[in-house]
Amino acid sequence: MDPTTSASLRSFIDYDPSHHFPIQNLPLGIFEHGGRVRAGTRIGDFVLDLALLEEKGYFPGLSGVFNRPELNRFLSMGQAVWKEVRSAVSHLLDVNTPGLRDNSGLRSQALIPYADVVMKLPVAIGDYTDFYSSREHATNVGTMFRGKENALMPNWLHLPVAYHGRSSSVVLSGTPIHRPMGQVKADDLEHPVHGPSQLLDFELEMGFFTGPGTSVGHPLDIKNAAGHIFGMVLVNDWSARDIQKWEYQPLGPFTAKNFATSISPWIVPLAALEPFRCKGPEQEPAPLPYLESPGDWAFDIELEVYLQDHLISQSNFKYMYWNILQQLSHHTVTGCNINPGDLMASGTISGPDENSCGSMLELCRAGTRPVQMPGGGERKFLRDNDTVKITGWCQGEGYRVGFGEVAGTILPAVN
Amino acid sequence: MDPTTSASLRSFIDYDPSHHFPIQNLPLGIFEHGGRVRAGTRIGDFVLDLALLEEKGYFPGLSGVFNRPELNRFLSMGQAVWKEVRSAVSHLLDVNTPGLRDNSGLRSQALIPYADVVMKLPVAIGDYTDFYSSREHATNVGTMFRGKENALMPNWLHLPVAYHGRSSSVVLSGTPIHRPMGQVKADDLEHPVHGPSQLLDFELEMGFFTGPGTSVGHPLDIKNAAGHIFGMVLVNDWSARDIQKWEYQPLGPFTAKNFATSISPWIVPLAALEPFRCKGPEQEPAPLPYLESPGDWAFDIELEVYLQDHLISQSNFKYMYWNILQQLSHHTVTGCNINPGDLMASGTISGPDENSCGSMLELCRAGTRPVQMPGGGERKFLRDNDTVKITGWCQGEGYRVGFGEVAGTILPAVN
Repeated sequence: MDPTTSASLRSFIDYDPSHHFPIQNLPLGIFEHGGRVRAGTRIGDFVLDLALLEEKGYFPGLSGVFNRPELNRFLSMGQAVWKEVRSAVSHLLDVNTPGLRDNSGLRSQALIPYADVVMKLPVAIGDYTDFYSSREHATNVGTMFRGKENALMPNWLHLPVAYHGRSSSVVLSGTPIHRPMGQVKADDLEHPVHGPSQLLDFELEMGFFTGPGTSVGHPLDIKNAAGHIFGMVLVNDWSARDIQKWEYQPLGPFTAKNFATSISPWIVPLAALEPFRCKGPEQEPAPLPYLESPGDWAFDIELEVYLQDHLISQSNFKYMYWNILQQLSHHTVTGCNINPGDLMASGTISGPDENSCGSMLELCRAGTRPVQMPGGGERKFLRDNDTVKITGWCQGEGYRVGFGEVAGTILPAVN
Repeated sequence: MDPTTSASLRSFIDYDPSHHFPIQNLPLGIFEHGGRVRAGTRIGDFVLDLALLEEKGYFPGLSGVFNRPELNRFLSMGQAVWKEVRSAVSHLLDVNTPGLRDNSGLRSQALIPYADVVMKLPVAIGDYTDFYSSREHATNVGTMFRGKENALMPNWLHLPVAYHGRSSSVVLSGTPIHRPMGQVKADDLEHPVHGPSQLLDFELEMGFFTGPGTSVGHPLDIKNAAGHIFGMVLVNDWSARDIQKWEYQPLGPFTAKNFATSISPWIVPLAALEPFRCKGPEQEPAPLPYLESPGDWAFDIELEVYLQDHLISQSNFKYMYWNILQQLSHHTVTGCNINPGDLMASGTISGPDENSCGSMLELCRAGTRPVQMPGGGERKFLRDNDTVKITGWCQGEGYRVGFGEVAGTILPAVN
């Protein structure tokens, strides 16, 4: 077992047992402090400056990897380097290691209060892909868009359906989202109109960032896929349902989704999630051999969605029918190459219960059963000034490996 | 009128009146020669080294723009800089300008025989989008996939339908294309299989590269859209029809297209295409105001497709129903931002005639009327070792502004 995930590990930095960023996590992110943008990890309420540690020789063999405004170079280096850096940082933060613990000069330089930094997008995202891998979500939405009979397309149980998204508009948690203007057509009108979306929605998703790239024309064997995935983030795939309904046939969603996708700032490495791997849903019919998963690759990650500060959905990443290795392998099946730092999102993560739906569309049954808000209000879709916050964590024995949050507030349309 | 497009211009470099790269063209590209990768333009059978000219001060105010392996920085600079550089290069190559003409030392350094260079992808492509803007193509394909009644979806005449493509697998003309393995299901079988695509196709397209970027949340006014487009290339959007048919519902084509998209190496600037702007098809119903085109923005570009060296299709870019300004504006309508160097392709450019179809699917009527090849053979879809070549040009008075070609040969599947 990887010692960096041991439940008995303690750091000399104090934090609560429910804190998302204990020594077992060690996520990577990009932060700005003192006018410089560089890579760091998070420990409790501090950011550990990895660029400084690299400069001081704490990562033998590495140079110019962390003193950059994105993690792409680090992602390209693969599992052996990822593991070395993780071990070195884990050791350095261990309560029993005096090096950083007892060097107050280095501590004050390398450990920066989280409240003092500004987080940035962690990766220069080359391509962004969005899967559609929750059976419950596909069934719920398919029923509303196409009726019960055609809800799940014949292909759905045979391959992880996905579409290419827009990478330019992936934004960091906290970025306000303008209500999109767009083209919509009411069922009872002959012509479409151009106006603000009336059916603005969130989608509860997670996504993974890819590591080392592959070559065009060479599919990735699913047995090797895990080595091409660095870690995961929370994703909110904002969606304008009225625009989507009008535009999506026959080539899929376009302007209904490309206006913004929000992600959480810290990439939690697969290494930290390893203890939380679990069995996913039974796959029947059995996937074709190229999609046969080498072991259990679901993850037990508890997920919550808040509107303002009101909990409106509780789901879990383990509900996903198709796992991340199947997604990545299928993505490359015809020879599509990946680059370090591609983002691949799960699709909306809905569960089996009424309250485990990952979008307003599903929670309020396409507007027929509004979500009740405290104080007597209700919501069918998002209103201006609404704030959506998604959070998620793995529950260990006496500690949590968390993802922090991805939050966004709706601003009025720009006309 | 822009003097760089005058039909009376002559260069001291000799070329044929049918040559694609006369002084009126001056496309931009990236080439490798002597171990260095940098930007150049094309004149007749020579490449003019723009990095060298920049270094020597021929472009006052520019530095570090052309001595790079991609044109993104130049694209970000916008129309004023594009115009200055174009004027300077046009003047330098003019038969009446002695500067380069009479300096044999500089000529031998700056003008490199095209046969001696290796072309590279001209741009680090951030996002790639593929439109679906030929009415004839949408009708032809829609009829085959969904029957005559549902051929053109209700939205098609109201907005330029598009999907996000995969930028990582955009490759340069000449790159061989492996026949994709993928998941397909025959109508008479219960389960899908994993095997080589049997219905491999090309798509005759063109694409434009974007210039200065925009901000998330801020749609681009169509009146300003032209300033965000630098120029155009030829595109072959390789497509596996059997994979596409099985996977495309409900989110659009994914692995059927993401294995490769080929582009021609030289970006022909809009400035060179200006004399060939023309009226496009009548748009009825009238587009919504945000899609009202400021003037005529179709382009009269003759297009040809060759299989081996046999001409199988003749089309024209002017057939496109939606023009490039409408495409770009619609892309940003909900607030999607663009970055310098995004590629936006037209979709298959089919015309009104039997022989103006831009794909094998259409040319052979989904396999019912095979394309006759010289020597008695025939083709429904592409076979291993087939070479598809697309070329295109604008016919001026006594000169052509051409795009060169985008070519690709099919290799057997990698199993």
